[in-house]
Amino acid sequence: MAAVSADVKLVGLWASPFVIRARLALEMRGVGYEFLEETFGKKSELLLKSNPVYKKMPVLIHGGKTICESMIIVQYIDEVWNNSTKPSILPLDPYERALARFWTVFIDDKYTPLLFVIVRARTEEAKREAAEGAVAALQILEEGYTKHYDGKAFFGGESVGYVDIALGSSLRWIAVVEEVCNVKLLDEAKTPRLFKWAERFWADDAVKAVIPETHKFVEFGRMFKAAEDAK
Amino acid sequence: MAAVSADVKLVGLWASPFVIRARLALEMRGVGYEFLEETFGKKSELLLKSNPVYKKMPVLIHGGKTICESMIIVQYIDEVWNNSTKPSILPLDPYERALARFWTVFIDDKYTPLLFVIVRARTEEAKREAAEGAVAALQILEEGYTKHYDGKAFFGGESVGYVDIALGSSLRWIAVVEEVCNVKLLDEAKTPRLFKWAERFWADDAVKAVIPETHKFVEFGRMFKAAEDAK
Repeated sequence: MAAVSADVKLVGLWASPFVIRARLALEMRGVGYEFLEETFGKKSELLLKSNPVYKKMPVLIHGGKTICESMIIVQYIDEVWNNSTKPSILPLDPYERALARFWTVFIDDKYTPLLFVIVRARTEEAKREAAEGAVAALQILEEGYTKHYDGKAFFGGESVGYVDIALGSSLRWIAVVEEVCNVKLLDEAKTPRLFKWAERFWADDAVKAVIPETHKFVEFGRMFKAAEDAK
Repeated sequence: MAAVSADVKLVGLWASPFVIRARLALEMRGVGYEFLEETFGKKSELLLKSNPVYKKMPVLIHGGKTICESMIIVQYIDEVWNNSTKPSILPLDPYERALARFWTVFIDDKYTPLLFVIVRARTEEAKREAAEGAVAALQILEEGYTKHYDGKAFFGGESVGYVDIALGSSLRWIAVVEEVCNVKLLDEAKTPRLFKWAERFWADDAVKAVIPETHKFVEFGRMFKAAEDAK
C-alpha cells in the first residue's frame, strides 16, 4: 500500500464487498488512506453524518468532501488519481466504458443482493430460489463475458478493471454462502469462464493485498448469519 | 435538431421517461439520429435483439454497437460527442461528477419507480403509500439541492445537466400521475426549490424540442393506466 495520505479516509467494515470495492480501487491507483473501520452491528456517528441519505458504507472522505456509493467511489478514485502509470480502472473507450457500466449495473441488480437474500432466507425453499437466481445471473454474466470479453484475462482486459472489482468484491462471500448456507453458486460446470476468471482474480497483487483469506470471511459470515437469524 | 446521422439510431417509445433521457442528451449534444419508435404494448424484434438481458428501452445503436440503460447512454453520448461548444452533461470536476451520479442513483432508486407503483396500485391505501414515498423522496432531493446546488439554476449549474435529465425526464409523468391518479406529488409548499427548478427546466431549448406537451402525456397515461388495470 502507498504511504497514508492524511486527507484520504475510508469509512467501512473490512468484510463488506462494497467496502472492498473502494479499497481495491485505492490500492490499484496507489492511493494511501486511513481506514476508519466500522464495528459490525452498529454504525458510527461519522458514517451516519457522512451518508445521511443511505446511512451505508463505504464512505470516502477526501479533503473533507464525502463520496458515497461503492461504484461511484471507484469512478471518483479512477478520475482523481489518474496520473498513475497503472492502467485505468474504467476503460478509456466510450463504448467499452458503457459496457463495463452495463455489466456492473447488472451485477448489482440481479446478483449481489441475492447473496444476502440467501443468508437471510427463513426457509429451504426461499434459500433454494435465491440460490437459483444467483446462479442464473452468473450464467448471464458468463454469456456476456463470452460475447464481449472472450480471450481476455479480465473484464478489464489484461488487468483487473471496473467489472472485475464489482464482481470480485463479493467472491469471498460466494465461498461463505456456499459453506454456511450449503448451496453451490460458482459452479465450474455451469460457469466455466467465470470459474477460471476467479482464479486469475485471486492472483492479482491488489486483490491479494486487500482481500483477506476465506476462513476470515467464513468466521465473519457465521456471525453475520447468526445475527440475521436472531432478528 | 441536428442533421440525422445515418449511424445513430435510438430505439424507444416517445413517452418513456427513460427514452426522453437519451433524446435530451442527443439534443443537448447536437447529435442527429434516427428515432426508431416502439409501439405501446409490444416490443420490436430490434429491441429484443439489441437488449437481450433487460429487453428494455431505450437502446442507442451507434455504428452498429448497442448501448443500453438510459443513464449509461447519457454518459456515452456525453463522452463520444464531447467536442461541442455546448457545456458537458456531467460536470468535469470529479467530486461534482460523483455528486451528480449519487443523486441520479437516488432518483432511480427512491423516486422514479414509485410513479409506476402509483399508476399500478390496486387500492387507495397502496396508492397513498406510494405517493407519500415519492413526495418524501422529492423532499430529500430538495434538501440535496439546497445543500449542494443552492443559488444555481440547475443541478448542472447554469445549464441542464446529468441530474436535471434524470429528474426532468419524468416531470410530465408527475403531471400525468397527479391528474390520472388524483394525488399531489410536486407540491410548491413541500418542495419549493424543485417547483421553481421545474419551471426553469421547461424553459430550456433542448427540453422544449424533445418533450411533448402535457396533454399528450395525459392521453397516453390514461391508456397506460387502462392497460395496467386490465392486467
